Amino acid sequence: MTKSKGLLIVLSAPSGTGKSTLIKLLRQKMPNLTFSISYTTRQPRPGEINGKDYFFVSLSEFLRLKEQGFFAEWAKVHNNYYGTPKESVLKSLEQGKDLLFDIDIQGAKQLKSSLNQGTYVFIFPPSLQELKKRLQKRGTDDPSVIALRLENAKKEIESASFFDYWIVNDDLEDATNKLQSIVIAEKLKPFYNPGLPQKILQPTT
Amino acid sequence: MTKSKGLLIVLSAPSGTGKSTLIKLLRQKMPNLTFSISYTTRQPRPGEINGKDYFFVSLSEFLRLKEQGFFAEWAKVHNNYYGTPKESVLKSLEQGKDLLFDIDIQGAKQLKSSLNQGTYVFIFPPSLQELKKRLQKRGTDDPSVIALRLENAKKEIESASFFDYWIVNDDLEDATNKLQSIVIAEKLKPFYNPGLPQKILQPTT
Repeated sequence: MTKSKGLLIVLSAPSGTGKSTLIKLLRQKMPNLTFSISYTTRQPRPGEINGKDYFFVSLSEFLRLKEQGFFAEWAKVHNNYYGTPKESVLKSLEQGKDLLFDIDIQGAKQLKSSLNQGTYVFIFPPSLQELKKRLQKRGTDDPSVIALRLENAKKEIESASFFDYWIVNDDLEDATNKLQSIVIAEKLKPFYNPGLPQKILQPTT
Repeated sequence: MTKSKGLLIVLSAPSGTGKSTLIKLLRQKMPNLTFSISYTTRQPRPGEINGKDYFFVSLSEFLRLKEQGFFAEWAKVHNNYYGTPKESVLKSLEQGKDLLFDIDIQGAKQLKSSLNQGTYVFIFPPSLQELKKRLQKRGTDDPSVIALRLENAKKEIESASFFDYWIVNDDLEDATNKLQSIVIAEKLKPFYNPGLPQKILQPTT
């Protein structure tokens, strides 16, 4: 049988929806899911490791790579650049590794048009009101930043039709189980199992 | 929010693959899955109930219904007719009921072109050898019938590319869990959740 292909799964969610926690729980349940490592020009935070959390590169190095078409998607956020390396992603998928991405809608769209594959999941907050409460409770942002995040959340929710699957995160365990079901189901598609009928038909003798 | 739509899920498998057991186990896990009731011209077997196992109708009644375009798919098997009622299926789906179908590949193809929706799952035996063993072990068929069933199985496996998902039934519990994941994942698609973004955005005041 031809080797199974890896699954590329992308999660997007408005800020405050609980995506990071969801990803942590999903990876505990599915340790074979590899988290895709991005390139960035921002400074490492204490404890962050080069090649594990990010590949930390200089601005000139990033721009050089970007010019070469090295990135499947890239974005500039708060004066820092972030990018997903195209070739290493494709190689991992060919080797049958399942890759998990945490990117915003624009990045997800870029990634899809650049790689022409993958499963795109959007995580909703239970409601805009609930999202506002969660952002206020975090206490890290002042009211004007919260208002901006809510405005962005609105726009992202309005773009949700781009995605293949929708999950409402009103219960972390339930949402994690749903994510896991998506991964399990997707990997049962013919695309990820080339040559399966031939293998079943094969005389074993 | 617009009402959720029901899922139409079709299982096909070569004879002897263990589909009936799988369906029984899946329905225990997901009691809300309604098994679609077919029309048939064959005689009820002891214990079978009209309107629960099948709708039992006369040949002339069946042919009359068939002429009227009453069936989304129909087939003649061993001199008996079987058919799936189109309108009642569509109505159940509109009401948000999830419907499970157990039909062969030809029926699955008819159903898809007639209803233009649904999720189509093919169940593989672990191998042709294993399928032969299982058919022999059942002891209900003589060797020529087993040979015919194996020939049919081969053809069905060669047509597996029609289906959306592939499951190998080498372990009943594992296969049941995979089926359940497919149902859970499918219902997270936007098609089955019209109006969800609008609902999330709604001010609850």
